[in-house]
Amino acid sequence: MYRKEIKVIDCTIRDGGLMNNWQFSDEFVKAVYHALVEAGVDYMEIGYKSSEKSYSRTENGPWKFCDEKDLRRIVGDNKTNLKLSCMADIGRIEPTDIAPKKDSVIDMIRVACYVHQMDKAIALAEHCMDKGYETTINLMAVSKVNERDLDEALNDVAKSRVPTLYVVDSFGSMYCEQIELLARKYFKALPGKTIGIHAHNNMQLAFSNTITAIIEGCNMLDSTLLGFGRGAGNCHTETLIAFLKNPKFKLRPIIKVIQEQIIPLQQKIDWGYHIPYLITGMLNEHPKSAMEWMESPEKYDFVKFYNQMTESYALE
Amino acid sequence: MYRKEIKVIDCTIRDGGLMNNWQFSDEFVKAVYHALVEAGVDYMEIGYKSSEKSYSRTENGPWKFCDEKDLRRIVGDNKTNLKLSCMADIGRIEPTDIAPKKDSVIDMIRVACYVHQMDKAIALAEHCMDKGYETTINLMAVSKVNERDLDEALNDVAKSRVPTLYVVDSFGSMYCEQIELLARKYFKALPGKTIGIHAHNNMQLAFSNTITAIIEGCNMLDSTLLGFGRGAGNCHTETLIAFLKNPKFKLRPIIKVIQEQIIPLQQKIDWGYHIPYLITGMLNEHPKSAMEWMESPEKYDFVKFYNQMTESYALE
Repeated sequence: MYRKEIKVIDCTIRDGGLMNNWQFSDEFVKAVYHALVEAGVDYMEIGYKSSEKSYSRTENGPWKFCDEKDLRRIVGDNKTNLKLSCMADIGRIEPTDIAPKKDSVIDMIRVACYVHQMDKAIALAEHCMDKGYETTINLMAVSKVNERDLDEALNDVAKSRVPTLYVVDSFGSMYCEQIELLARKYFKALPGKTIGIHAHNNMQLAFSNTITAIIEGCNMLDSTLLGFGRGAGNCHTETLIAFLKNPKFKLRPIIKVIQEQIIPLQQKIDWGYHIPYLITGMLNEHPKSAMEWMESPEKYDFVKFYNQMTESYALE
Repeated sequence: MYRKEIKVIDCTIRDGGLMNNWQFSDEFVKAVYHALVEAGVDYMEIGYKSSEKSYSRTENGPWKFCDEKDLRRIVGDNKTNLKLSCMADIGRIEPTDIAPKKDSVIDMIRVACYVHQMDKAIALAEHCMDKGYETTINLMAVSKVNERDLDEALNDVAKSRVPTLYVVDSFGSMYCEQIELLARKYFKALPGKTIGIHAHNNMQLAFSNTITAIIEGCNMLDSTLLGFGRGAGNCHTETLIAFLKNPKFKLRPIIKVIQEQIIPLQQKIDWGYHIPYLITGMLNEHPKSAMEWMESPEKYDFVKFYNQMTESYALE
């Protein structure tokens, strides 16, 4: 379907960086940037905006912090149609550390929060808006939020100036009917606002859940190249661009950068669908235990991981 | 959702065999058989029923032919709740070569056909029914069939005694709205009959399309262990069993056989999602060109394959 309002946000560096502490070469980040420009992708989420009080510079590469000098080393003044986005976690950034938009190449700051942090998220997002940025709130782990708490959070967002809220399937535990329910609930609670979708691929449903969200009217779509991202990864940018027939998008540059940059990376970092991620996804659990398992010598002892994860359930 | 009519047909040996000419060790086939028995899966499709006039015994392993003696070497008299299925391709088997059910451990024969072969498929399926077998017709490549031809084929099936017809996404080119349309069309044309789904994973939609089919009322669900199958492979048995909460299914034996048999096989055979399969899927083309590409030294030159496949389209 042709809907010109649709925007694709490629989060390869930001979400993928969760797998290597944002230790990317400049060549890699530049290649991703140029490919997204050429492909007509709308936004590149290039990293987190974090405080050095929260994270170490020795452990984390520059895209955990997104200093202006690092950004400009890659994008110059970014005289392109590709907008740049950073994510900010509640409590990990001093609002005063965020420069006014006129002094930054960043176009959008997305505030990630859990439901109990919604007040703080709205305050930070409105602070960013006042400084001149586009902004969204990405309400994480919604699959664990009860109906009362979600309704209250949605009510708070409705009263705010924040223009966009995301349906975020942090644990990759949802299927189409759950995405439908949430998208409809968000639209009903937030008339006039934009709804986005950020899906994870634990059960191989990240792309299809994104399609469901499109059908429901969501217009901000997160994806990463070859699904590169935490654990099972994300909706793949290449499947999404192949699906969207929107004339602004070109698939060839996406395929090219996957071939030249992402496939070699895949030899070193083992993201994507694996049985331990399926297990945490089906149990609606955070993927961290599966990620630890995938780093352990017992990686392929799936039965042991299944037994460990299901011992408090009566699962066979 | 709990729907006791749902049946899972694991096609690991039959569809996976397309990747290695059915050259499986007996140990492998037995391990799959015992895992499916223990997991409560409904059917195991163990191979093709073919004539030796059509295929060579030296090139193809025993599961291309499914002789009774080979079957019994694996399953004995199959005194289990797991039913056995074989697939028959039109023109590749002499109907007279099919033994009466009382002399066979096979429970079901599924007839695969293209739309122009529907008359022959109905004749062969009814022949199998007369010999005592359960039967289905799997109408392949429906994404290439025009509406007039499909309506005529459905009308023919409606008038037949064949109880089950499959929606088959041979090229892995369909998404949820197309599956919905076909499932609804099949149900409308075939009142009282069972509808099945067989999906391929070129665009990472095999599992989600199977979920869509379930929501639409389809009760025969094809899958394979870790998606092992032609090209991009199939709906994964483990994601399907994890999704279905039906009390007859157990996930642990499925995870165990994947760990012990399928992961080692994956070191040798490279099925699953890869960019060339995405390209044929998005173009609604047969995956054979992508499979050849994946066997060539240029395997990772995705851009070259994309250029070659899209030269007659105006795709960027």
